Amino acid sequence: MSAYDELMAFEHSTQALGQVAGRLGWDQEAIMPKGAAPQRAEEMAAMESVLHARRIDPKVGAWLAEIDDAQLGEVERAQMRHIRKSYERTSKVPADLAAEIAKVTSRAQGIWAQARADEDVAAFLPTLKDVVALKQQEGQALAAGGNVYDAMIDDYEPEMTAVEIAAMFDAMRPRLVALREAVLAAKAPPQLVGDFPADKQMALTAKLAASFGYDFDHGRIDCVTHPFCSGSGLDVRITTRTSDEPFNCFYSTIHEVGHAAYEQGISRDYLLTPLGRGVSMGVHESQSRIYENQLGRGRAYTGWLFEQMKATFGDFGVKTADDFYGTVNRVNDGYIRTEADEVQYNLHIMLRFDLERALMLGDLAVDDLEAAWNDRFASDFGYAVDKPSNGVLQDVHWSVGLFGYFPTYSLGNVYAGCLNEALRNAVPNLDAQLAQGDTSAATGWLRQNLQQFGGLRTPADTITHATGAAPSGEPLLAYLEAKFGDLYGL
Amino acid sequence: MSAYDELMAFEHSTQALGQVAGRLGWDQEAIMPKGAAPQRAEEMAAMESVLHARRIDPKVGAWLAEIDDAQLGEVERAQMRHIRKSYERTSKVPADLAAEIAKVTSRAQGIWAQARADEDVAAFLPTLKDVVALKQQEGQALAAGGNVYDAMIDDYEPEMTAVEIAAMFDAMRPRLVALREAVLAAKAPPQLVGDFPADKQMALTAKLAASFGYDFDHGRIDCVTHPFCSGSGLDVRITTRTSDEPFNCFYSTIHEVGHAAYEQGISRDYLLTPLGRGVSMGVHESQSRIYENQLGRGRAYTGWLFEQMKATFGDFGVKTADDFYGTVNRVNDGYIRTEADEVQYNLHIMLRFDLERALMLGDLAVDDLEAAWNDRFASDFGYAVDKPSNGVLQDVHWSVGLFGYFPTYSLGNVYAGCLNEALRNAVPNLDAQLAQGDTSAATGWLRQNLQQFGGLRTPADTITHATGAAPSGEPLLAYLEAKFGDLYGL
Repeated sequence: MSAYDELMAFEHSTQALGQVAGRLGWDQEAIMPKGAAPQRAEEMAAMESVLHARRIDPKVGAWLAEIDDAQLGEVERAQMRHIRKSYERTSKVPADLAAEIAKVTSRAQGIWAQARADEDVAAFLPTLKDVVALKQQEGQALAAGGNVYDAMIDDYEPEMTAVEIAAMFDAMRPRLVALREAVLAAKAPPQLVGDFPADKQMALTAKLAASFGYDFDHGRIDCVTHPFCSGSGLDVRITTRTSDEPFNCFYSTIHEVGHAAYEQGISRDYLLTPLGRGVSMGVHESQSRIYENQLGRGRAYTGWLFEQMKATFGDFGVKTADDFYGTVNRVNDGYIRTEADEVQYNLHIMLRFDLERALMLGDLAVDDLEAAWNDRFASDFGYAVDKPSNGVLQDVHWSVGLFGYFPTYSLGNVYAGCLNEALRNAVPNLDAQLAQGDTSAATGWLRQNLQQFGGLRTPADTITHATGAAPSGEPLLAYLEAKFGDLYGL
Repeated sequence: MSAYDELMAFEHSTQALGQVAGRLGWDQEAIMPKGAAPQRAEEMAAMESVLHARRIDPKVGAWLAEIDDAQLGEVERAQMRHIRKSYERTSKVPADLAAEIAKVTSRAQGIWAQARADEDVAAFLPTLKDVVALKQQEGQALAAGGNVYDAMIDDYEPEMTAVEIAAMFDAMRPRLVALREAVLAAKAPPQLVGDFPADKQMALTAKLAASFGYDFDHGRIDCVTHPFCSGSGLDVRITTRTSDEPFNCFYSTIHEVGHAAYEQGISRDYLLTPLGRGVSMGVHESQSRIYENQLGRGRAYTGWLFEQMKATFGDFGVKTADDFYGTVNRVNDGYIRTEADEVQYNLHIMLRFDLERALMLGDLAVDDLEAAWNDRFASDFGYAVDKPSNGVLQDVHWSVGLFGYFPTYSLGNVYAGCLNEALRNAVPNLDAQLAQGDTSAATGWLRQNLQQFGGLRTPADTITHATGAAPSGEPLLAYLEAKFGDLYGL
């Protein structure tokens, strides 16, 4: 066997073990008996230890030294890009620093949760300082003289930089603030009220997943507190939740189906290889968001959904498909990112991106974080944060050391805007199909132009390949301004 | 750290990884999307490879050489007994032989299934010859000059020998044959007929599991084709099935609850160590069988179950608790081991034990197996096998190389007979409690006298410790003769 074949055989097993570890995580969130938690922690730690040993295995280093990428084909070179990068990143971070980060962030999450419950920012700050300092050290190790925050972004959105992101976000922000103001000053569509039994929500949500092409032969849907998608290849499971508000269930499901469609759509040739998974958080989010928003919350699909809801729940108080479209897309004031609508969501992200970038680069002290958050929120949203759980303490991310992750949410929205524009050009009668609950042309286009390629190209090149143009915030802004301008009579 | 502590830390992780592999198997049988099978096979293979590497890790050999068991306490010595044995067994079997057995048995299972479907023994025999020859080689490697079949039994029932088992079985067989004949000549109790919806079966089965103390905080119940129990420690999951015949569901559940009670009842001090699992297949089966038969099919508990069934299904045609007790314990002619009742089950096992012992020792040729099976069946059951799927092709075991496993089913019944006798002596008013659906005294006694100890003692010593006497077939025979003599008016 050549060094490349040996390396890929080793990598194949590592990917398989990674899937096993992921499945354990799914099991824990979705169906594990609650008393099993302490044992599960031991099992996860043992798996992580096995995976870590494989990631830094000297055999990998020897194979990497032996392989001449220039002699390989396009796909093989792409595999090598992922494997080299993963090996180098793992090797750059000293083992004791990695262990310290794991220890501190594990503790920090509990402290954050308690501080949030107590509305006590001061109780969290000492811990956050530790996390920030450790992540800065890690960033320095990874950046090796380069930009610390870019090195962190690279973990989630390879080869994207804060400068590129900032250019995009800074151009979008004023128009989003203006759109938000105009929308909230206009007359709002009716709100959904009524009684929507959980079992009927689950029955309809399975139908919606099927309408978006979710492959139940290679996945399943379970109920959890915080929905997510888990797994790659032939076993991609989604979760959802029911609540008083059925749109929460339905659009969580469609969002996760978007993530799953990406994983299920990747070429089977890449099964259990580095190319066999979504290429980045941003591109992943573009799939969940285009399914959820540009397709799922569009006038055409909501027309079909309206009929499904009447068939499922009977008369639920909304009279026409037009009213229903407005209700689905109603914009409300709010503090919480995860509850935000299409108009406001990216403003939440831009706030976090600017603050965490400043934190990591040493331009903002942890002690000044809450004030900076509250100032920025008031400026972008027009009203003051009322309590820390609605402000700087609302998200778990920073407590667990996720810096560089937040911007990928909005990158996903930006990419979804680009893909939606290209999709509409390629499939002119798309809305006629969506109005029948038929998303096959949309998913077919996404699969053919993006999903099948997995990790073959960089995230930005993945979007460029699919749309014919480099990623830009303009299509998303144009889409939002047109959609909400129409809906709110602006 | 001492060598013992280092070894135990390593072993702790190995046990945790073993639990992960077991959970994958559970997932596959219970809830996995069916299209995931090829990927799951890769995941299982990767886990097996990790586990195998740990089992033969030279570090383990070095620690074992360094540790002086005589310096250890009782528990630590017992841990060492398990670890040394596992290491030695794994080291004794050449890697290429183990790989060849894995390859051939994996193929053989499919060939067996097809041959059974086609009623074509000849199509299976060449493959079975390969399996038998390979298992004989493995047995020779393990036995190192000793008895080949004993070396195989030792995998499932440590330190038990075929001579001991044969002495027990040969003494029991004539009395079981006689009991079977007498019972089937007598007037049979009524058969259960009616409509028992699957959802109501599942609701009642959960209640039955709870009545036997199944700990839902550390387990769950799912539906499968072939019920089983999976996992140790804090996460012990059982499965059941529904069918037209609700006793199938209820007694499958109670059987698996018995297995689970053992795993859930082991001292938490032994969590993720070799002592933290049931000590043998036979002792495991003793727990499932005493729950299912001596407790669950007894007159007292069935009186309570009768009321539960009336509450669940309404009038289902059986008029009195006495009739119901008869119906639950009705003995029918039949060819299939897994469908056999208490009277006939062990005759099925004894047949297989004698045949596989002769096969392994070279006293029976594979070509003569079917005739030997059919002769023995006619002699013990009084009528002829009508087709191979009801005879020599009915069980999967031999195709996958499970030799030495069958006798543990009847050893479990024998042990259950011993435990039942001791339990009744220790808790004289047990039936009054069982008649209320209260099994806590029974489970409490089993937990205190057997379950908590896990792998601390050998299987035989485990029974002796609990009952005060060495295992013997006599209590089981006395119980069966009394119960069915009474039921059938013999």
